[in-house]
Amino acid sequence: MNRMNGADSLVVTLKLAGVDVCFTNPGTSEMHFVAALDRSERIRCVLALQENVATGAADGYGRMAGKPAATLLHLGPGLANGLANIHNAKKARAPMLNIVGDHATYHVKFNAPLTSDIEGIARPVSDWVKTTQKSDDVGIDAAVATREAASWPGRIATLILPADASWSPTDLIGDPLIPEGPAKPDPAKVEAAAKALKSAKKAAIFVTGMPLQDDNPLLLGKIKAATGCDVIAPTANRRIDRGAGRFNVIRLPYVLDHSIPMLAQYDTLILVGAPEPVGFFAYPNKPSQLAPEGCNIVELASHAENTVGALELLIEALGAGDAEPEVTPLALPDDVGAMAGDPVDLDNLCRAIAMTIPENAIICDESITTGRHFYPAFATARPHTLLHVTGGAIGGGLPLAVGAAIACPDRKVIVLQSDGSGMYTNQALWTMAREDLDVAVFLFSNRSYKILVGEMKGVGAAEPGPVARDMFSLDRPEIEWTGLARSMGVEAQRVTTAGELLPAFERAIAEPGPRLVEIML
Amino acid sequence: MNRMNGADSLVVTLKLAGVDVCFTNPGTSEMHFVAALDRSERIRCVLALQENVATGAADGYGRMAGKPAATLLHLGPGLANGLANIHNAKKARAPMLNIVGDHATYHVKFNAPLTSDIEGIARPVSDWVKTTQKSDDVGIDAAVATREAASWPGRIATLILPADASWSPTDLIGDPLIPEGPAKPDPAKVEAAAKALKSAKKAAIFVTGMPLQDDNPLLLGKIKAATGCDVIAPTANRRIDRGAGRFNVIRLPYVLDHSIPMLAQYDTLILVGAPEPVGFFAYPNKPSQLAPEGCNIVELASHAENTVGALELLIEALGAGDAEPEVTPLALPDDVGAMAGDPVDLDNLCRAIAMTIPENAIICDESITTGRHFYPAFATARPHTLLHVTGGAIGGGLPLAVGAAIACPDRKVIVLQSDGSGMYTNQALWTMAREDLDVAVFLFSNRSYKILVGEMKGVGAAEPGPVARDMFSLDRPEIEWTGLARSMGVEAQRVTTAGELLPAFERAIAEPGPRLVEIML
Repeated sequence: MNRMNGADSLVVTLKLAGVDVCFTNPGTSEMHFVAALDRSERIRCVLALQENVATGAADGYGRMAGKPAATLLHLGPGLANGLANIHNAKKARAPMLNIVGDHATYHVKFNAPLTSDIEGIARPVSDWVKTTQKSDDVGIDAAVATREAASWPGRIATLILPADASWSPTDLIGDPLIPEGPAKPDPAKVEAAAKALKSAKKAAIFVTGMPLQDDNPLLLGKIKAATGCDVIAPTANRRIDRGAGRFNVIRLPYVLDHSIPMLAQYDTLILVGAPEPVGFFAYPNKPSQLAPEGCNIVELASHAENTVGALELLIEALGAGDAEPEVTPLALPDDVGAMAGDPVDLDNLCRAIAMTIPENAIICDESITTGRHFYPAFATARPHTLLHVTGGAIGGGLPLAVGAAIACPDRKVIVLQSDGSGMYTNQALWTMAREDLDVAVFLFSNRSYKILVGEMKGVGAAEPGPVARDMFSLDRPEIEWTGLARSMGVEAQRVTTAGELLPAFERAIAEPGPRLVEIML
Repeated sequence: MNRMNGADSLVVTLKLAGVDVCFTNPGTSEMHFVAALDRSERIRCVLALQENVATGAADGYGRMAGKPAATLLHLGPGLANGLANIHNAKKARAPMLNIVGDHATYHVKFNAPLTSDIEGIARPVSDWVKTTQKSDDVGIDAAVATREAASWPGRIATLILPADASWSPTDLIGDPLIPEGPAKPDPAKVEAAAKALKSAKKAAIFVTGMPLQDDNPLLLGKIKAATGCDVIAPTANRRIDRGAGRFNVIRLPYVLDHSIPMLAQYDTLILVGAPEPVGFFAYPNKPSQLAPEGCNIVELASHAENTVGALELLIEALGAGDAEPEVTPLALPDDVGAMAGDPVDLDNLCRAIAMTIPENAIICDESITTGRHFYPAFATARPHTLLHVTGGAIGGGLPLAVGAAIACPDRKVIVLQSDGSGMYTNQALWTMAREDLDVAVFLFSNRSYKILVGEMKGVGAAEPGPVARDMFSLDRPEIEWTGLARSMGVEAQRVTTAGELLPAFERAIAEPGPRLVEIML
């Protein structure tokens, strides 16, 4: 039998550590890794036509599988192309393991065209970065990298692998290492939170992360039932399990004119895994911090602590163990609320989607302005999982769906996708077709960066003139999303009236495999 | 009259410093810059649907205009999305000025979703990075940034502009600053190069940068005529002006099995603006340095020096002032050399393109494996300008064409584009349609990352197994480039036989505006 090389050691180590999927666009420096995958046939390798699809897919996979996928990226530029969705994953605190090929160690000093400071590019979006120096180190470095990625609550680990470390022989593999778990809840913080809740006139729990997942929201419901507090999630969250049969968590609106008044009613905020609420952007003469002045802000648990455990202790401290959480009833619209020939508007769109969401669907939401009323409208829909684009880097929606569909092949994935952001990573459609992923893309074509019209006003700039209007408009030329999708092998249909919405959505849900519905707004 | 704000100061300063074009995808933090553009109406603003299109276009513009365009990018992720083509521009030593919006200075500490280490992301691809702190500094910082970008031989300057520096008032603008020129040629190096050339058995000049541009290659031709040396350019170059009527510079092949034997004949190499020849990648048991052992390598001028001036001094030192450079004759193929119904192959493709290139065309070359024989085949075509993707980051071809077409509206731009790399920045097609750019895209559809088949062998990895073959193939599903182009407003035609090549190419050249020809290989 041939001796292993560094790439074999990497593949075996990753597999032993539980890495099952690799999203990739490999190049020359990664060829030995690809050959090692061929020899092992143990890790599913998913090709992306641009790296931001690969990294966004790894984010979606990590959120749904609860463990890291690997990405395999080609030197500094390959990493750079995927950086924006790594940024989103970092803000989600999703687990992700990036393997980035580099030139052979001895070749770097010659500054060939593809040479760049890969560690420098990786560091701003990574929690952990290392360059392996030799083949005997690949195993242990890969084991540490995987442990880092899988550590609580999910981290970005980037391992840079020079070509010669990959192709040189080694007998060593890395034993799986136990990921670092959350820090234990702090009894003093639990006591302080209980006290604050009891003495509050009106309190809210501001919460993200694991408490929003699986059945954990019911814990939040118990606290609400016992104390009368509200429960609010940030605008963007890694994952929320919600809908009928679950406790409904309110979401903080994106627009400050809505979020500041919402929070104004509270004299007490309990933070659980979330920092205090701040604006997505700063605006002249508006605060960055959104809680009212003098609000008593008490942290129950930071993201580094066991947030679910802390909620359990808080329930105990409040004597709320027997409290009955309010559970959302199933309540669907009776119809789309419009005549068949009416134009599509946000109201009939909301209704049609709410009626369509199938039991246990995963919804990847990059609906931006179109979707501002979606969150409350889907609260009483069939139970589903919601994934947000967490770092504000547009182009997250379609890739998230690729990863979620691969993590959960038995669940329907729906992408609520705006057109401007969808164009950033349109290449994800091809991977959906190639892997025959069960994804329905609802594409909202308003042919503009509509959000910027409001933002321009928000920052106090002048009324949009010709340059600004031109920068906000996507209608010269119009993008034909049905043609775009078909060119990459995804069947597609265009909807222009309210009456077409429901049949188109239902067909996209009923048919297996990817399908795009372009909704003309 | 209203007082200026920082954004006004930026626009006025840039315009005074000669910046005429801005390639952009702006967001909230850049709204005041957009409003300032509206007030001034002096800088042409070109929208891209993804930032790597904007930065690649700025590269193409910079190479053709000989001065920097600005890019306007939205915080860290917007910069990250454009990083790969900034990397290419840096390797081209093209001038480029990146303006990156950031949160208001006081907002950064709250770590809102879009917060990231923008300087950290910028540094690996920039020669100069600065974050402006207040509105009164915008003018001077913008003037310095523009000077840096325009300094010899072309640099990457990245100016980070917090939203509050943009929206706060100021009365200050930045006076234009004189860019740093090249260092003077070193007489000692000129003397050493002359001596080396005279005593060489067989010498070559290895040259890139300004000597390949405009009429400068004739200087190289004089030296060849006087000394018998060869003249070789690296595989990837910022710009080569070539074709009939010009002196033909040989290009170093990408594949080591060709480049090493080519260089083996020389006992002397004279470096002009280029580092010594090294492999694009390292391969086991092959050298990184491609010149033969014992080769006398003499630097006439580094990229930081006046390379053209150094060649003039060398001509003087050699007494070659009256030498007659060999000038390339116009020699076009008589026909495509195939029957009308024959399949397209590399030979008839080469011929058809050579016959088609119109006088004074700009050719953006990202043809990868398909184009390995293009360079010699087009040596005797009508005079044209050739732009390479210089940093090995694929996805450069279509964006380069956007920038070149905007810099030179009176010249036809041709993109020789492979399919795999073209998918990286397919969004560039939309900007071509929007701006009605006179670009003919010749899209080579081999439905694979064909280069990787050879690379896998080259690095000594196993024969491609099922995983590798899957990672190299783009035929599941096939991408329909005609449909893709049309979906973004670009007319397109598919060619499957040799007989269709010439009519399709001639039509694409004859018709104004963008047009794509998909060539099935």
